[in-house]
Amino acid sequence: MDGCVFCKMVKGEIPVVKVYEDEAVLAFLDIGPISVGHTLVIPKEHCARLDQCAPAMLGRVASSLGKIAGAVAGAMEADGYNVLNNNGRAAGQVVEHLHFHIIPRKANDGVFTQWPSFEYEQGRIENVAEKIRRNLK
Amino acid sequence: MDGCVFCKMVKGEIPVVKVYEDEAVLAFLDIGPISVGHTLVIPKEHCARLDQCAPAMLGRVASSLGKIAGAVAGAMEADGYNVLNNNGRAAGQVVEHLHFHIIPRKANDGVFTQWPSFEYEQGRIENVAEKIRRNLK
Repeated sequence: MDGCVFCKMVKGEIPVVKVYEDEAVLAFLDIGPISVGHTLVIPKEHCARLDQCAPAMLGRVASSLGKIAGAVAGAMEADGYNVLNNNGRAAGQVVEHLHFHIIPRKANDGVFTQWPSFEYEQGRIENVAEKIRRNLK
Repeated sequence: MDGCVFCKMVKGEIPVVKVYEDEAVLAFLDIGPISVGHTLVIPKEHCARLDQCAPAMLGRVASSLGKIAGAVAGAMEADGYNVLNNNGRAAGQVVEHLHFHIIPRKANDGVFTQWPSFEYEQGRIENVAEKIRRNLK
């Protein structure tokens, strides 16, 4: 898409530190990483958010994602890794072209420890589920 | 897999608040959510971590993921959403069966604001990329 930074990277108009490429995806190092080896995996075809991408395209991207994540984690001798995809500015998406962050982790590294979980009030969870189910009919 | 909580949910041996199901995936509400509508999407077939799952299976899971995420975000009137997959205890994985968290977000909700980014020292990024590329050959 015109004006999209990630599309320009796919076309080679903006340089990247590439780690992997196939017909469907490009993977490169995030230059503002939150851990060493933090990698971005993007589809070559433009789409902005996960819910706006064609299912077949998502399938192609995901089928390479495990292999790339394993290579990143192995190279960094990580104890684990997060795969994170942000959709919309409220969720931290800055570039409006689908991307998956692969974030290698070490035990007790202090990255991503925020997990403010709570419990639903009595009866509320069914009400929430019903709203979602209605959207999937 | 024997003893796996999520496999038991797939088999109906442990109840879930289901929002979606097809041949490949089961989606249900997280009972310890970090935002209202926080949903888990899991493959019906057992595999523990993204890098251990068959590419074709990941493709099938991902091809439903956009539709489910869109339904969750729409039902919650969210401004955005995160899709998060944790692999390994160091990365926050508690149940060792692949799962994607769909986390609806509102602007300035204070969920998931931690993003401790840094810059690589001169020359280091190429060294890191080369290690990863070696694992992908």
